[in-house]
Amino acid sequence: MSAIDLLRARLAELADLASVQMLAEWDQLVMMPSQAAAGRAQQLGTLAHLSHERATDEQIGAWLQELQGAALDELDADIVRIARRDYERARTIPDDLAVELARAAAEGQEAWQRARADDDFGSFVPALRRNVELARAQGQCVAAPGQRPYDALLFDYDHGLSSADLRPLFDALTEALPALMEQAAVHSPARPMAVPAQAQKAAVQSLLAKLGVEPSSWRVDVSAHPFTTWTGRRDTRITTRYSDGDVESLLSSLHEYGHALYERQVDPALERTNLGTGTSMSVHESQSKLWENHVARSPAFAEVLAAELTVAGFAVTAKDLHATLVGVQPSLIRVSADPLTYPLHIVLRFELEHALIEGDLAVEDLPVAWREAVKRLLGLEVPSDALGCLQDIHWGAGSFGYFPSYALGCLIAAQLWEAMEAQIGSRADDLSRGEVGEIQRWLAEHVHRFGRRLDTIPLVEQATGAGLTVEPFLRYVAPLAGG
Amino acid sequence: MSAIDLLRARLAELADLASVQMLAEWDQLVMMPSQAAAGRAQQLGTLAHLSHERATDEQIGAWLQELQGAALDELDADIVRIARRDYERARTIPDDLAVELARAAAEGQEAWQRARADDDFGSFVPALRRNVELARAQGQCVAAPGQRPYDALLFDYDHGLSSADLRPLFDALTEALPALMEQAAVHSPARPMAVPAQAQKAAVQSLLAKLGVEPSSWRVDVSAHPFTTWTGRRDTRITTRYSDGDVESLLSSLHEYGHALYERQVDPALERTNLGTGTSMSVHESQSKLWENHVARSPAFAEVLAAELTVAGFAVTAKDLHATLVGVQPSLIRVSADPLTYPLHIVLRFELEHALIEGDLAVEDLPVAWREAVKRLLGLEVPSDALGCLQDIHWGAGSFGYFPSYALGCLIAAQLWEAMEAQIGSRADDLSRGEVGEIQRWLAEHVHRFGRRLDTIPLVEQATGAGLTVEPFLRYVAPLAGG
Repeated sequence: MSAIDLLRARLAELADLASVQMLAEWDQLVMMPSQAAAGRAQQLGTLAHLSHERATDEQIGAWLQELQGAALDELDADIVRIARRDYERARTIPDDLAVELARAAAEGQEAWQRARADDDFGSFVPALRRNVELARAQGQCVAAPGQRPYDALLFDYDHGLSSADLRPLFDALTEALPALMEQAAVHSPARPMAVPAQAQKAAVQSLLAKLGVEPSSWRVDVSAHPFTTWTGRRDTRITTRYSDGDVESLLSSLHEYGHALYERQVDPALERTNLGTGTSMSVHESQSKLWENHVARSPAFAEVLAAELTVAGFAVTAKDLHATLVGVQPSLIRVSADPLTYPLHIVLRFELEHALIEGDLAVEDLPVAWREAVKRLLGLEVPSDALGCLQDIHWGAGSFGYFPSYALGCLIAAQLWEAMEAQIGSRADDLSRGEVGEIQRWLAEHVHRFGRRLDTIPLVEQATGAGLTVEPFLRYVAPLAGG
Repeated sequence: MSAIDLLRARLAELADLASVQMLAEWDQLVMMPSQAAAGRAQQLGTLAHLSHERATDEQIGAWLQELQGAALDELDADIVRIARRDYERARTIPDDLAVELARAAAEGQEAWQRARADDDFGSFVPALRRNVELARAQGQCVAAPGQRPYDALLFDYDHGLSSADLRPLFDALTEALPALMEQAAVHSPARPMAVPAQAQKAAVQSLLAKLGVEPSSWRVDVSAHPFTTWTGRRDTRITTRYSDGDVESLLSSLHEYGHALYERQVDPALERTNLGTGTSMSVHESQSKLWENHVARSPAFAEVLAAELTVAGFAVTAKDLHATLVGVQPSLIRVSADPLTYPLHIVLRFELEHALIEGDLAVEDLPVAWREAVKRLLGLEVPSDALGCLQDIHWGAGSFGYFPSYALGCLIAAQLWEAMEAQIGSRADDLSRGEVGEIQRWLAEHVHRFGRRLDTIPLVEQATGAGLTVEPFLRYVAPLAGG
């Protein structure tokens, strides 16, 4: 076998291991009996260890060496280019640091869970400090010459992006959104609506079926937190949750559908290669936000949603439902934030995690810094750390550099949506009839099919003809503020 | 790390991989969207390939070498003993034969499925011939000096057993059962009963709950063919199926429960070692048969089953239900055979597969030989190959040496049951009240806890004080014939 065939065989093996890992995690969250948790953690550890060993194996280095300067077709050239990047990245982390990172992440998550339940930040400090130190060490290991540790961590989620790219975008949001927020809180105030879980469930199932979710290649299940997983292009699994007190499942099921559609529409030629998945966290999040913000929260699609709920026994007008889905109110909790204030929650997390990793903020000063930032950006007092800096799992689990993708996703979604409508016209008529075929096709052609062949910014540029900017997002939220 | 620690770490990894493989297979049969089949086959292939590579790695040989003559405690000595056996066994099969075996098994299964659907044995001949030849080659590879190829294959399912051990047992069955069968067909004739699927389901769920099947460490699902799987001692998953025309789920759920309980009651100290599962196919089958034949088919437990069905809306007396569960009628199909004639189906398969592997029967002569054996053992004419030699998947999937365990399971179950009742008294009173705690404890102590530390015959001997014989089974079926 030639070097490229050997490399491709190994990449197929790694893709299979990743699929099996996702399956085991899905099973854990959706199907597994609770007492199996300890055993499952060991199984996942073994899979991670094996994957790492096979991904950093010196044979890969030898094949890449042999392929240096080889005449390859475009696809193989991309496969080799990304294989080299991934291999070099994986090899920079010493084994003992990798083990320590994994252990600290598991213990940090547990410490975080207890601290949040007890609203006791002090008890979380040692674990968080260890996570910060290890993440900084990791960033130092993987940093390119002259690259800061935080930026090196960011590369794992969004290759090619740096803090220097993020700052002007986030500064623009910080400048524009607080004022818009105050106007929107008057013009489009929060209008909670309690739809019975059974009606939501029936509506979501009917709706997803119309979007192409059929049982021969999809599953839709219930889990504590909605998520999407896949073990291949013909096995996509989304979860949602239903509760009587809200309308959350209407938004979250469309959100997860966006993640799922991305993975399903990657070019089949990339399957079982290193290019066969979404390219970055921010582009992935842009796909979920596109369906959540621009489809589910559109006035046109509200007609479809309202009709589904009415058929399911909860009579509601499109106008009332839409008002609920877009109502603006500054709040303390990120995951339930409205579409306008959501990115501000991310800006404050970016500021703080950047400062933690770069040594500009001590761990024990985090609660004070958090309160200051929430006051400044959202105008709110934080009554407790449980509703403040303890609300998210990420830092406890050792993830630094992940948060920005949530805000970038909102921006990219808006920019893609504008580009799409500029090219193929307003989607309002189609959406009011529940027709999304043209949207699916446009996304496949301009975003999904590339898999990892294009990084975030080149992908945005070729899809929209421009670099990433905040204007489309600001235009998207302007009507909420009466603009 | 010392050689024993390194070895144990590798065995833990292999145990984790086996668990993940079982999970992926369970998911495939119970949860997976149908279009994912091709991708799942690749994932399972990757897991099998990795497991084989890690199990035959020369490092293991080096650790075993180092451990030769080392002072080890009893458990570690057993771990090393079985590790050496497994390692040497796995290393005897050349990689290209292993690949060919796997491919032929997959293709043979497909060929068998089509041939059975079309009742066209001729179309199955090439695939079956290839499977026979490859299995013979495999047997020759792994055979100890002087061991016949078929006996070498048998070792994979039941280490320590040979055709010479089986023949006297199977001869005794051949001698005794046909006459008993004729008497039983009069004394305990078949009495079909059509219990609605919903009533069966309610009864099975309630029944399993009484046997300790609770959702924090068990799952009970539906699949096309009932089976049992586990990913650890606290994650046991059984499946069953419900149809309106029979009472099958009452027997099959107890059958699978028997397999499951065995795995759950292995000594926890053996978890994630090479000893932490059931020791052989025949002992595993003895555990399922014990619960199927000696619990579910007992007159005492029929009272519990009848009460459950009555509560579930299908009023029936214990007497009538018991008569249905034990009704005897010679039939063509193994999987639905009654408890008395079942072993005869196995005897005929043993005879034929032994002759195929040892070259005493040509593949194209199989249908004639099958018809002759069915006539001789069961007194029936075989109207078609679909109801004859094409009914089972095993040979199509390349499994030779597996069938005997089904009959041995019946024998061992009967022998264990007699030994247990001799030691702790008749179980009838307990069973009539649905109490099985003493049975569970006896099995844990005398069978389950050993895992793979004892092979089939030593295990039977220490549990029952005697070698394997047919008498307990013949005493078990005698009442059906009025004896």
